[in-house]
Amino acid sequence: MTTTRLDRWERRTEWPLAGSAAVFLAAYAWPILEPSLVHGWRRACEITVYAAWLLFAVDYTARVVLADRRLHFVLHHLPDLAAVALPVLRPLRLLRLIALIRVLNRRATDSLQGRVALYVSSSVVVVIFVAALAELDAERGHIGARIQTFGDAVWWAITTVTTVGYGDRYPVTTDGRLVAVGLMLAGIALIGVVTASIASWLIANVRAAEADTEHALQRQITALHTELLEIKALLKADAADR
Amino acid sequence: MTTTRLDRWERRTEWPLAGSAAVFLAAYAWPILEPSLVHGWRRACEITVYAAWLLFAVDYTARVVLADRRLHFVLHHLPDLAAVALPVLRPLRLLRLIALIRVLNRRATDSLQGRVALYVSSSVVVVIFVAALAELDAERGHIGARIQTFGDAVWWAITTVTTVGYGDRYPVTTDGRLVAVGLMLAGIALIGVVTASIASWLIANVRAAEADTEHALQRQITALHTELLEIKALLKADAADR
Amino acid sequence: MTTTRLDRWERRTEWPLAGSAAVFLAAYAWPILEPSLVHGWRRACEITVYAAWLLFAVDYTARVVLADRRLHFVLHHLPDLAAVALPVLRPLRLLRLIALIRVLNRRATDSLQGRVALYVSSSVVVVIFVAALAELDAERGHIGARIQTFGDAVWWAITTVTTVGYGDRYPVTTDGRLVAVGLMLAGIALIGVVTASIASWLIANVRAAEADTEHALQRQITALHTELLEIKALLKADAADR
Amino acid sequence: MTTTRLDRWERRTEWPLAGSAAVFLAAYAWPILEPSLVHGWRRACEITVYAAWLLFAVDYTARVVLADRRLHFVLHHLPDLAAVALPVLRPLRLLRLIALIRVLNRRATDSLQGRVALYVSSSVVVVIFVAALAELDAERGHIGARIQTFGDAVWWAITTVTTVGYGDRYPVTTDGRLVAVGLMLAGIALIGVVTASIASWLIANVRAAEADTEHALQRQITALHTELLEIKALLKADAADR
Repeated sequence: MTTTRLDRWERRTEWPLAGSAAVFLAAYAWPILEPSLVHGWRRACEITVYAAWLLFAVDYTARVVLADRRLHFVLHHLPDLAAVALPVLRPLRLLRLIALIRVLNRRATDSLQGRVALYVSSSVVVVIFVAALAELDAERGHIGARIQTFGDAVWWAITTVTTVGYGDRYPVTTDGRLVAVGLMLAGIALIGVVTASIASWLIANVRAAEADTEHALQRQITALHTELLEIKALLKADAADR
Repeated sequence: MTTTRLDRWERRTEWPLAGSAAVFLAAYAWPILEPSLVHGWRRACEITVYAAWLLFAVDYTARVVLADRRLHFVLHHLPDLAAVALPVLRPLRLLRLIALIRVLNRRATDSLQGRVALYVSSSVVVVIFVAALAELDAERGHIGARIQTFGDAVWWAITTVTTVGYGDRYPVTTDGRLVAVGLMLAGIALIGVVTASIASWLIANVRAAEADTEHALQRQITALHTELLEIKALLKADAADR
Repeated sequence: MTTTRLDRWERRTEWPLAGSAAVFLAAYAWPILEPSLVHGWRRACEITVYAAWLLFAVDYTARVVLADRRLHFVLHHLPDLAAVALPVLRPLRLLRLIALIRVLNRRATDSLQGRVALYVSSSVVVVIFVAALAELDAERGHIGARIQTFGDAVWWAITTVTTVGYGDRYPVTTDGRLVAVGLMLAGIALIGVVTASIASWLIANVRAAEADTEHALQRQITALHTELLEIKALLKADAADR
Repeated sequence: MTTTRLDRWERRTEWPLAGSAAVFLAAYAWPILEPSLVHGWRRACEITVYAAWLLFAVDYTARVVLADRRLHFVLHHLPDLAAVALPVLRPLRLLRLIALIRVLNRRATDSLQGRVALYVSSSVVVVIFVAALAELDAERGHIGARIQTFGDAVWWAITTVTTVGYGDRYPVTTDGRLVAVGLMLAGIALIGVVTASIASWLIANVRAAEADTEHALQRQITALHTELLEIKALLKADAADR
């Protein structure tokens, strides 16, 4: 595997982008969590969100330019394009924080299982937090809306992502429902990953016995090889004798 | 594998049938989405739906006639029979659009994983759209019905297929409940496919190590073979010497 | 495997017990579905239910007596004991109809996959029907009960077994909640079986390639064997020459 | 594997800790289930809960001291730390009863499948019982709370852990919602374990055929070895002849 220019770009921009996602998160979350924020700070947050968007747009453009097969790159990174091009999907940019988790993760744990578990659980926490923010932003103040505080939004996000869906809180606006759909998909993925991890762990245990069989096969063949070498030596000695 | 007459028929009718399913979809969806459609257009849509039904009935009959084991074919294609024979199940005919996806798919992607992912996600979109249409058709205008607009119907379909089931919208008519049952089954299948894909991917990764063991075995056996050929050459030279 | 006396008993009583379960089902379902049934028929149904119970009790006792390890048998067949001993769990006796499905199944299909699919789907249909009956029996007439017709009960059973749980219908009595718990467990099992079947099918496809590797190994080893036999023949001819 | 001092400590404290968890459970459950308990008994229960907490705190401290890598131990046993340090999470201490199940389990069953099934089902029962207690404790008496009796709490816990979530009962307090989140996670784990067990069982059945192939390989290689030994004997006899 050779590292392309795209790989180098992505490695170098990993930290700055994760950092700007964190700044974006703060500037995005503050006005939502603090509805009575004074005008000056609210304006500052808007500008910060805009600046972070600029950075993401520059990064996306650079990656398209650096890619070997540009159309292929665009088609395989549609969520990135959507997060940059559609203002309503801007919370998706926060998913870059998951990349940050990946970086931190690389240092924190050693086993593959631990890494997958830590990665999935931190991603779920980020997704729930971001979805609750976006939902609160979409619903608050609408007539008949049942999600009016951040606590309610987090509670709703958790009942949705686990597919429990009590129905005591649910979105009533179109924007809020779009957030809900994203969260439901994340929920199905979550159930899938948890189940699949347990299944692969169980199956790997069963597999241990099979690996033993294969190693026994290898030992048997090695024994055969030793015999053959002895036979060749005998034959050569025989030929030399005569 | 020899291609039977049935195979040839199915390959040839793939595109025309997918096309007539698309026309059927338009003629089925329009009066539902536009309740105030003038009588003339409404009549035209009814005739188109009827014409499409005729095509499907002809195709089904032809496939039964061409099959080698007719009873076996009928028993293994009960949904096709139901979609043709029962007017209430006519939305099932739209599932042929999924066949269209399969055809397009064959061109668009190259990897097996990409193909499965694209196929599942497009099928889910078609199923949700068709179920929302059928649900709206069944529920609208009924007393106490909570699904009165297409937006509500799509939202209800998504909360159902993901098994979240808030309960803010649910069908109250028998026809609407039948559509819901189909959608719930699709939801269980969706969770199953997502989980199974992740599991098989995880297991395949674990399996890579095993494949290495097997290839090592093959290399060992090839080395044995080389030795044996050398020994045979020695023996033959020996026999020639004498 | 030797057939024990218990095996022979179970094979011989398979059909009579499935038949008496069918009769029991009719006698159990009729008064529930027809609340205005006249006293005479209602009494006849009660007597039939009692007679079927006697048969099941005799069968259970006979199986305990015929078992080699009686305590082990009782501990591994607790649901059978519960269905016989606890009147509230008598709907469990209807699960013997699933055994009937198994018998019919043996004749109807040939492939393992078809058999599993048919078995699971018929079991789900039986479980939903029986649970709807038991639920209607438990809830009807209670204050605040939302399940008052058989149609509602079937709809509720389906939303429960798929874990969708809209919440438009739910049990309010203790007996009704016990039925619901059984149905939820069946739902989790259903999701598990569907997912596991898809996963094992996907994995089996991946496995085909591996089986090829193993067969290649076998062919290589067979080639080695042929070489060795040739060498032995050469050596023997050599020894005979001298 | 050598047994460390930590292992010995954990083996020796297994029974006393499970016992004190049982006592803790009684002293925790009694005032919740009996709201009209007289002051004296209520006080006794509080003291018992405090004493059990002391035992758990001592045990946790001892395990940290005895661990080889203390920081590693603390990071990998965060739930234990939380259960000891945060009063609101004290129901987590009851999970030690699951350890008791493990001990009893070791005696009761012989097959791996039976053990997993028994372990999962008893854990689910303990988790539902403990969650219902904690939920009732958190919700009872609050304005608008819908969980006011133990029966309701158990019913709610079961609808939550199976992810059905009718929405007829749901928590409205922050403490109650925290308990619900724990229960939803347990529900996802439950679905995961059930599905994964079925999948690994199905796959193991498919695998049986493969194991046969491997054993055939072993037999083939053993036959090769026999041939080689014969050839060596021939060669040696040959060399001795001359």
